[in-house]
Amino acid sequence: MDNPFFSAIRTHQLAKNSLLCIGLDTHFGRLPAVVKGDENPIFRFNKEIIEATKDIACCYKPQIAHYSAVGAERELELTINFIKSLGIPVLLDAKRGDVGSTADMYAKELFERYGADAITVNPYLGLDSMEPYLSRSDKAVFILCRTSNPGSAEIQNTKVNAEEQVYERVAKLASGSWNYNSNIGLVVGATNPLELRRVREIVGEMCLLLPGIGAQGANIGETMEAGSNGEMLISSSRAIIFADSGNDFGDAARQMAIKTRDEINLCRTMS
Amino acid sequence: MDNPFFSAIRTHQLAKNSLLCIGLDTHFGRLPAVVKGDENPIFRFNKEIIEATKDIACCYKPQIAHYSAVGAERELELTINFIKSLGIPVLLDAKRGDVGSTADMYAKELFERYGADAITVNPYLGLDSMEPYLSRSDKAVFILCRTSNPGSAEIQNTKVNAEEQVYERVAKLASGSWNYNSNIGLVVGATNPLELRRVREIVGEMCLLLPGIGAQGANIGETMEAGSNGEMLISSSRAIIFADSGNDFGDAARQMAIKTRDEINLCRTMS
Repeated sequence: MDNPFFSAIRTHQLAKNSLLCIGLDTHFGRLPAVVKGDENPIFRFNKEIIEATKDIACCYKPQIAHYSAVGAERELELTINFIKSLGIPVLLDAKRGDVGSTADMYAKELFERYGADAITVNPYLGLDSMEPYLSRSDKAVFILCRTSNPGSAEIQNTKVNAEEQVYERVAKLASGSWNYNSNIGLVVGATNPLELRRVREIVGEMCLLLPGIGAQGANIGETMEAGSNGEMLISSSRAIIFADSGNDFGDAARQMAIKTRDEINLCRTMS
Repeated sequence: MDNPFFSAIRTHQLAKNSLLCIGLDTHFGRLPAVVKGDENPIFRFNKEIIEATKDIACCYKPQIAHYSAVGAERELELTINFIKSLGIPVLLDAKRGDVGSTADMYAKELFERYGADAITVNPYLGLDSMEPYLSRSDKAVFILCRTSNPGSAEIQNTKVNAEEQVYERVAKLASGSWNYNSNIGLVVGATNPLELRRVREIVGEMCLLLPGIGAQGANIGETMEAGSNGEMLISSSRAIIFADSGNDFGDAARQMAIKTRDEINLCRTMS
């Protein structure tokens, strides 16, 4: 049986000719003045961004810390419900990682309370810590492999032996014994084209979530060249949603989303 | 300057002759009938547990997933405020790990919204992902090193070279370059006495948070023998807080806390 999330992503990518996943890292402090007085300002902002980009994004990725930092759990729920009402898949970026009964509670938080279709998780604690997510064949699970930050090499590029680093070991496990429900994707920072190419070699066509373009400065051409022979979700957050802080923030986000989608597609054709 | 959290822990450990940290993994489904009808049942339960054990616990450790899974953020806030009103340190177990601006949001969630004195974090993303926590010299940060679950070896015991495994690398970094504010502790599962001994060799007297006794079945004698030549917080959660599900749950928790503290102290004298 095909995974419902990956299947929905393919449908939206084809229909919209777009690999773009829009990240809803909705920092309260950066909201335009026009929404700040609203009863639910974060949701009001997200709703306008989503309405302005719903024919361009194949997926939305709310980042949970931006909501929990300011007690905006209700606005996250409203946002996810609104995205789902449009039939668009929701990837909830939470990067959880804990053991046993606590991991069960995180699964309940992400899948039941918030109704996410897919999530991000941290592999440091091993397979059993991820079972409450991986056992859900109706959901998709993106495991951190090689992250987009400058310091990611410190642990992830530690050499395991002459030919293998920690992130490669994660990629092998994730495309092997961990993937018993065919519901795994990997997070690989677009800022690391060399590692991205290596992960693609290991995992074949597995779906990769690529943060790092936009505000984090990755080169789209290099990213597409390294990773496009397989499924991809290319994520941009702040560069799109905060493209303009005036009253026309929705239009500005739309223009930036179109520009980003088109840049990706241009490199897709070339690679 | 001495770290306020580690300093407070020492004071409470001495005054109460106790290394016991009580985990508030307050699973809503396991609450006694007597509190279930309360307006804030999780807080009501926690408050009774805390009042019954406040002269025995050197620290309380709420585990955040048990609150966020059921939308009980307010009850977590009430719980933490109550613990702090008694002058007892609060370690908020959240195991966060993310990059850049998102890590800033997690720091805001844990330290500002909830007012935690100390937190747990995941090291997989490297030093820069932990900077928003480590830069806070007024707080303490417990980094996951070797966790208590059966599958933890999968990544953490990967050999880096003939003499070093990933968890040892984390211990070396955490007791070296990462610890520029002298505010780091490590999480080492009490279920792994061999690795605990090795971590203690690497980090010297650094404070170790040891989950795994009680419901997870670690042997207190082995734990104390392996780790007691340095600072320790020995954590037990479910075995204490759910010692009895009747009306006298507070008394039952108190008896189990006393028993656990005394077992630890007996092994402390012997080791």
